[in-house]
Amino acid sequence: MQTKIVQAVEAHREAILASFSDLHAIPEWGFNEFKTAAYLQQRLEKAGINIKKYTETGFTADIVGSEDGPAIGLRGDIDALPYKNEAGETYYVHACGHDSHATMVLWTTLLLKELGLVKKGTFRAIFQPAEECLTGAREMIAAGAAASLDELYGVHIRPIQEARVGQASPALWHSASTVAEVTIHGQAAHGARPHLGTNAIDGAALAILGLNSIWVNPAQQWSVKVTKIIGGGTASNIIPDQAIFTLDMRAASNALMDELVRKVTAACEHGAAAVGGHAEVNIIGGVPAAEYDEEAVSYLRTAIEEIIGSKGLLPPIYTPGGEDFHQFKQADPKLKTAYMALGSDCTPGLHDPKMTFDREAILIGVKILTLAMAKRLGCQ
Amino acid sequence: MQTKIVQAVEAHREAILASFSDLHAIPEWGFNEFKTAAYLQQRLEKAGINIKKYTETGFTADIVGSEDGPAIGLRGDIDALPYKNEAGETYYVHACGHDSHATMVLWTTLLLKELGLVKKGTFRAIFQPAEECLTGAREMIAAGAAASLDELYGVHIRPIQEARVGQASPALWHSASTVAEVTIHGQAAHGARPHLGTNAIDGAALAILGLNSIWVNPAQQWSVKVTKIIGGGTASNIIPDQAIFTLDMRAASNALMDELVRKVTAACEHGAAAVGGHAEVNIIGGVPAAEYDEEAVSYLRTAIEEIIGSKGLLPPIYTPGGEDFHQFKQADPKLKTAYMALGSDCTPGLHDPKMTFDREAILIGVKILTLAMAKRLGCQ
Repeated sequence: MQTKIVQAVEAHREAILASFSDLHAIPEWGFNEFKTAAYLQQRLEKAGINIKKYTETGFTADIVGSEDGPAIGLRGDIDALPYKNEAGETYYVHACGHDSHATMVLWTTLLLKELGLVKKGTFRAIFQPAEECLTGAREMIAAGAAASLDELYGVHIRPIQEARVGQASPALWHSASTVAEVTIHGQAAHGARPHLGTNAIDGAALAILGLNSIWVNPAQQWSVKVTKIIGGGTASNIIPDQAIFTLDMRAASNALMDELVRKVTAACEHGAAAVGGHAEVNIIGGVPAAEYDEEAVSYLRTAIEEIIGSKGLLPPIYTPGGEDFHQFKQADPKLKTAYMALGSDCTPGLHDPKMTFDREAILIGVKILTLAMAKRLGCQ
Repeated sequence: MQTKIVQAVEAHREAILASFSDLHAIPEWGFNEFKTAAYLQQRLEKAGINIKKYTETGFTADIVGSEDGPAIGLRGDIDALPYKNEAGETYYVHACGHDSHATMVLWTTLLLKELGLVKKGTFRAIFQPAEECLTGAREMIAAGAAASLDELYGVHIRPIQEARVGQASPALWHSASTVAEVTIHGQAAHGARPHLGTNAIDGAALAILGLNSIWVNPAQQWSVKVTKIIGGGTASNIIPDQAIFTLDMRAASNALMDELVRKVTAACEHGAAAVGGHAEVNIIGGVPAAEYDEEAVSYLRTAIEEIIGSKGLLPPIYTPGGEDFHQFKQADPKLKTAYMALGSDCTPGLHDPKMTFDREAILIGVKILTLAMAKRLGCQ
C-alpha cells in the first residue's frame, strides 16, 4: 500500500504543487479565509466528498468507511499572517506555511477517496481557520467540528535548523503559552503626601521583580516575561492608584504552566501587598502544551519510517512555540493526538514575511499522512 | 505711619472687599486671565498708576519715588484652577486664593500711591499669570518683568491648620519640585526567545526599586515617587524595548534636590544596565525651592509685628508645596526675596473647589504689605 500511495502522489505531483501555488496566492487573515475555504471546498466537492461548514471559514470533509471503526481526524490550519509595508498598509503572507498544511490535508483527503483507503470508521479532515489568532481551534470545537473523534493528527513544516527535507519527527512538542493581565490596585494621593496613598506602580515593580525571581524546574523549558505596562498618568503629581501589566508565560508542559501561574500569582499578590496594595491576576489568553498519545505517535512514526526510511526519522522535537491544535485535546481529554514535524528546509524562519521552503516537503507530507490515515482506517 | 496705613485700609474696607468679590467672580485659567488683567489694569490706571504689559495677561504697575533708592517688587498671582462638573464640563474656581493675592497687591499699590509712600527708589507690583501651570513666572522673567529688581516679596493665604486669621509668618518655605521623565531602552525580541532581547520593563522595575531605596538626609523634607509608566504593548508576545516613567520629586532645598536628582539618575542608569539596557533621565518640569534673604525676611517680620503684634507672628513654615515665585530668584541669584504666609482660616484646603477663607485676612494682608513696602521705599 505504501507503494500505491507513493505512486499516486507522484502521478498527481503537478496538481498537488499547483494547489499549493493557488493557496499561496490567496493569503487571508484568521476568520477571513473566504477564498481559501471556497477553493478547498470546491476541490473536495468536485471529488464527491461531503463537506460541512462549522464556522464562516472553518469546515470538515468526511469519508466514511463501510465497516465500523474509529473516527480519525487530520487537521490543517488555513490562515496567513498580516504585515505592514513601508506605506503602513497591511498585507498578508503565508509565512507560517499553513498553505502547505492545507495542501497536504486536501490531497490526503483526495487520495484517501480516490484510492478507496477508508475501509472502516470515518476519516475527517478539519480545515481550521485562525490558528495565528489562537482562537480558531476553540471556535471549531465549540461548533462541534471535533465531536466524537477518537484520534486527531496535525502537521507543521519546520525551519531548516530543526529538520531538513526528507526528515520528520512524529512528535512536535509545543509549549503551553499563557497571557495574563495583572492589575495592581493602590490608593491615590497628592504627590506631596505620598504617605497617604499606596503607589500601584511601586507594587507593580515589586511584583515584576518577584516574578523575575521565580524558579520552576530549569531542566524543562519555561519563561515568564512582562511585555506591557500602563500605570498612573492622571497627572505627574498624583500617586498612582492603578497599574496594569501583561505577562507572556511559556512552559514545556501543562503541569509546569500550572505551577508557574501559581507562583506568578503569589509574586504579584505579595509584591502588591508589600506596599499595602493588592493584585488581581487574570488569564486572558494562551494555549495548552502538547499532550500526545504514545500509540498515536507510534502510528505517525511507522508511516514516516515507511515513506522516508529510518534515516529520516527524527526524535521528538521540543519548541517554545504554541499551537491551538492542543485545545482539541484540552476540550476532549480522551482524544488521542499526535503531530508531525515535517522537514522543509524553511528559511529564514517561520513568520518571516520572506519565508520560503522546499516544496518537495509537501509531497513527502502527503505520502506520510495518507499512509498513516489509511492504516488507521482499515488498510494494512 | 503704621496708624496711617491701618486707618486708610479701614476707610477703604468695603472697596477692598468689593475688589476681591469682583475678582472672585471671574476665575480664569493660566495665561487666559483676560478679564482679571483688564479689571486690575483699569483700577490702577484710574488711580494714575502706569502699567506695562509683559505677556498677554501679565503686567507690572510701577510707582517711582523722587529720590534714588532700591527697586522693590511685590508679586501677586492672578490665575484660578480648572475643575470638571458631573457632566464633564470644565469650570474654574479661585480655589487657591490667587484672587485674594491679586486684591492685596492691587490695594497695596493703590495705597502706596494714594498715601504718597514711595519716597525713594521704585515700587513695582508684578501681576503674574499662570502660577498653577508653574510656567507663568518663567514667561514674565523672560519678558523682563523683574529685570533690575533688588528685592521681591510674595504672599499666600494659608490653610487653617497652618495659620489662623491674625497670624502670619514672614517665611513660607516652599519645597523644590522636579518632574522627570525616564526612558529605559532595551531590545525587542519574540516572547519565546527572551534571551535575545533586553526587557525594558524589567529595567524600569529595577530602576524604580533602586530609586525607592535612595536616601538623602531624612532630617529634611523630601520624596521621590513614580507617578506614571507606559512600556511595551506592541503585542503580548514581544519583549518590550522601551518603558517610560514619570517621577515626582520634592526636596526642602535646592541642594537637596540636586543630590536627589543625582541619586535618581544613578538608580535609573544602573537599574537599566543591570538587565543590559540603558536609561535617559530628562527633567521636564518643576520649580526651585525657596531661597530667602534674611534681611528681606526681617522686613516682613517687622511689618507683621507692627500690624498684628508679636502674638500673631509665626515662625517659618515649611511646606512640601511648590511655587513658581522662586524662579525669579533662580533667574537672578542676587535678587533678595521673602514670602509671607498669611493666616486666613482657609478650609477645607487649598485647591479644594469648595475652599473658603475669612476675608478679614485680605485687609490684614494689605496692611502688612503696604507697611513693609513703605518702609523699604523711604518711609520710617
